[in-house]
Amino acid sequence: NGHSNGYSNGTGEDGGAGWLLRRVLDLVLKTKLVTGLDASEKVVHFKHPHELKDELDLEVGEEGCSMEEAGRILETAVHYSVKTQHPHFYNQLYGGIDEVALTGAWLTEALNTNSYTFEVAPVFMLVEHRVIEHLVGLLGWSEGDGIFAPGGSISNMYGMVLARYRRHPNIKKTGIFDQKPLVVFTSDQGHYSISKSASWLGLGMDNAVAVATDAQGRMLPAALKEAVAKAREEGKEPFMVNATAGTTVLGAFDPLEELAAVCEGEGLWLHVDACWGGSVILSRRYKHLMKGVDRVDSISWNPHKMLGTSLQCSVFLTKHKDLLKKCNSARATYLFQQDKFYDVGYDTGDKSIQCGRKVDAFKLWVFMKVHGQSLLEARVDAAFHASRHLCTEVKRRGDRFRLVQEPECTNVCFWFIPASMRGKDETPEWWVQLSKVAPSIKERMVQQGTLMVGYSPIAVKKLVNFFRMVTTCTPTPTPAHMDFVLDEIERLGEDL
Amino acid sequence: NGHSNGYSNGTGEDGGAGWLLRRVLDLVLKTKLVTGLDASEKVVHFKHPHELKDELDLEVGEEGCSMEEAGRILETAVHYSVKTQHPHFYNQLYGGIDEVALTGAWLTEALNTNSYTFEVAPVFMLVEHRVIEHLVGLLGWSEGDGIFAPGGSISNMYGMVLARYRRHPNIKKTGIFDQKPLVVFTSDQGHYSISKSASWLGLGMDNAVAVATDAQGRMLPAALKEAVAKAREEGKEPFMVNATAGTTVLGAFDPLEELAAVCEGEGLWLHVDACWGGSVILSRRYKHLMKGVDRVDSISWNPHKMLGTSLQCSVFLTKHKDLLKKCNSARATYLFQQDKFYDVGYDTGDKSIQCGRKVDAFKLWVFMKVHGQSLLEARVDAAFHASRHLCTEVKRRGDRFRLVQEPECTNVCFWFIPASMRGKDETPEWWVQLSKVAPSIKERMVQQGTLMVGYSPIAVKKLVNFFRMVTTCTPTPTPAHMDFVLDEIERLGEDL
Ligand SMILES: Cc1ncc(COP(=O)(O)O)c(C=O)c1O
Ligand SMILES: Cc1ncc(COP(=O)(O)O)c(C=O)c1O
Repeated sequence: NGHSNGYSNGTGEDGGAGWLLRRVLDLVLKTKLVTGLDASEKVVHFKHPHELKDELDLEVGEEGCSMEEAGRILETAVHYSVKTQHPHFYNQLYGGIDEVALTGAWLTEALNTNSYTFEVAPVFMLVEHRVIEHLVGLLGWSEGDGIFAPGGSISNMYGMVLARYRRHPNIKKTGIFDQKPLVVFTSDQGHYSISKSASWLGLGMDNAVAVATDAQGRMLPAALKEAVAKAREEGKEPFMVNATAGTTVLGAFDPLEELAAVCEGEGLWLHVDACWGGSVILSRRYKHLMKGVDRVDSISWNPHKMLGTSLQCSVFLTKHKDLLKKCNSARATYLFQQDKFYDVGYDTGDKSIQCGRKVDAFKLWVFMKVHGQSLLEARVDAAFHASRHLCTEVKRRGDRFRLVQEPECTNVCFWFIPASMRGKDETPEWWVQLSKVAPSIKERMVQQGTLMVGYSPIAVKKLVNFFRMVTTCTPTPTPAHMDFVLDEIERLGEDL
Repeated sequence: NGHSNGYSNGTGEDGGAGWLLRRVLDLVLKTKLVTGLDASEKVVHFKHPHELKDELDLEVGEEGCSMEEAGRILETAVHYSVKTQHPHFYNQLYGGIDEVALTGAWLTEALNTNSYTFEVAPVFMLVEHRVIEHLVGLLGWSEGDGIFAPGGSISNMYGMVLARYRRHPNIKKTGIFDQKPLVVFTSDQGHYSISKSASWLGLGMDNAVAVATDAQGRMLPAALKEAVAKAREEGKEPFMVNATAGTTVLGAFDPLEELAAVCEGEGLWLHVDACWGGSVILSRRYKHLMKGVDRVDSISWNPHKMLGTSLQCSVFLTKHKDLLKKCNSARATYLFQQDKFYDVGYDTGDKSIQCGRKVDAFKLWVFMKVHGQSLLEARVDAAFHASRHLCTEVKRRGDRFRLVQEPECTNVCFWFIPASMRGKDETPEWWVQLSKVAPSIKERMVQQGTLMVGYSPIAVKKLVNFFRMVTTCTPTPTPAHMDFVLDEIERLGEDL
């Protein structure tokens, strides 16, 4: 199979070296995947799993295929992929990718380097170091340390492991078998990664205690105090509080000042899961939502969510210098040799739970460097501006829509009430009926490919399925886009 | 700053949409980063950290920079990055990236999708599912399940968490506080991720017991049996054995058949860390090295190492269907709604410890699909062929080089003995002197940029610093490349 050996130093014609890379760039530009997708395109060309299998021959054979065929495979993959860059994609806590960030991502992929030593990643180790310093400064901390992790869930795990280690350094060596059960507290709106982490780290999900929230979804400091006291009464040992800055569904910001006061009083590590809401730190207008962040012990933040620096881009930061290293190092002598001829202070990979570590810092750095802080701030503000417009518009549309709560982050949660249900007695049956509205409209939007918005219930607050709209920085959402969302939901669901 | 807003639907001129992406492609092609780097180029243009800082202004400012400047930044980043694609880069257990795999990686970056639900990643969820089925077949298992993880360390953690859960499912809920200390066994040549994982998972590093190996670095089944008995005597509970298929330094393959027999007898989960050596499964000639893999419970394999499918690409596989889901699921109702209109069997993200998960399966799939199994096999065989040539050549060069042991994987470990040290009494002082040779030569090779090879001691085997040469599939290593390595080491070190 002469087409597939790739390394024939060709000139870029069919099958020659570089041909397929050019083809990908052409495809990305032709489909405007990152350079401004047209709102008139479909967000998704939906096929059920069994149908999609007919469009793409997934079988791996003994022999390969031609470069032409490879090109077609890539086109099919793009065609049937959800266009997260589409101005009408609001389905998750991320959207499209910024072009400059993508450039950084493509380059690091091509360089295929590993973030563990200066020896193999000189540029990227300096960059990671600098980005972390910069973020520590943005948080108003006088010093700190950090590491890029493959996603917010693992960043949150870093926080838990560090909190545990700080309290009982011997755990690293001997484990937690003879400890009293260690308990972490998070709000009942906190992300499930806290409870998954509790399971992995050997604490058990029962020891990730859910603390009650107010109507907005913010942790109640008084409820936290009670929960801590209760755990102590049960013979357990509280060690950490996870505050959430921007909850997944409601977008609530836990009150950091008050939680810090509780944690200081109780001697607990305060971690902030700012995976979603952390980008407010870039905005003079919205950073008050994280007031008190100067008093916390650690924080997780995902630039891959609101900011648009492509998955994966998540950073864990702690105010305690050297703790990451002490907690996680294993000093492998094949990798972190101390007899190197250069300053091994940048061989920081041993702070990580990973060994090989993808370069995630560079795309964020180049994105910040090229755009400058003022543009990032403007983008965060634009995401908030659009969400505030949406909120106003939901209210303006009277009995057709109903807001779940006043938004804090860029999440706007609301029900759509179809014509047949308006002005009726809101009996338990009425609510059961309403719970089916969002899934039905969702099916229609996906089948038609015009819009994607997530929906969710919140059992603990007895809220049935509602729409969760979220706006992110990329592409920049406008008030007109917001109006479209509501118009489209009305169009799709009016007859229900 | 008019240059940096990016989304102006331009035509690709300076600063217009797409301009920077074209620039990256041009840079990648011009430097032949993935299309066949010239051996006459430098592997690295070394600068010390403080010098490198002068070449790259790391400061993030209030205002951004022009696209021209952005282009220069990217060029500088490439210039000072280590060329892992260089035919003389043998510094780690990975090398360059295959062009087809890179194409897949670039496309998934541009699509910015998340491997958790079919809803947002229809193509990629099918692909991941199919790749896992395919790999389960290659292992000769009748059924199985798996997941792509951000690297082999985390893949190995999956194995430990699953092994623990299978034994004590209640741990998920209540933790390990009232367990007897749980013990995992790995060889004294096993990767440090087992001990880091033991720390994170609450077992403690002391409960990752190192089992003695033979001269080749293979775990001794008799020593394992003794270690298990000893742990039981100490009142601990053995639960898992980690066998290594291709150890990090020596490239040893633990004897899976014999270890499986021990584990079956003792009722222990057998995991195989095949992160490095797992690619032998693709070769009819070398897969015997993993004989017995049909009897194990789980395996980790990193296509990003020997195979050249760019970091990160690591897969965890287990023979126990449904266990990943039972062990890890949290059933978040905002993401894994059960009232969706399509078959949610492909919403497999809840098997993961992550929430957002980068699409790592697609680049591997497209790489396998386009090249076909026969080419992958030929590449693995070529990597082995080169390493066997190197081994012969080390021996042929008489008293100038000395082999540490006969290689099993593509690792070839050897000492270079400079002229001044040849034919001398091998006193303790002689060995101390020899321990400084590899670091000195390493400094010279990096300073001159002609070659990069790792070195390592092995304290437990009383082996002082030796060179660890490794060959991978990309770019294809040749016997001539191997001769160059030894010639160059002689040139750099003869006067020591
Ligand atoms: C044998 C072995 N297992 C596991 C790993 C860890 O893999 P990763 O670097 O992807 O975490 C390595 C890394 O070198 C290794 O050599
Ligand atoms: C508040 C919050 N924290 C953490 C996470 C987990 O981040 P990741 O998906 O990167 O693991 C999420 C994901 O949605 C989140 O919403």
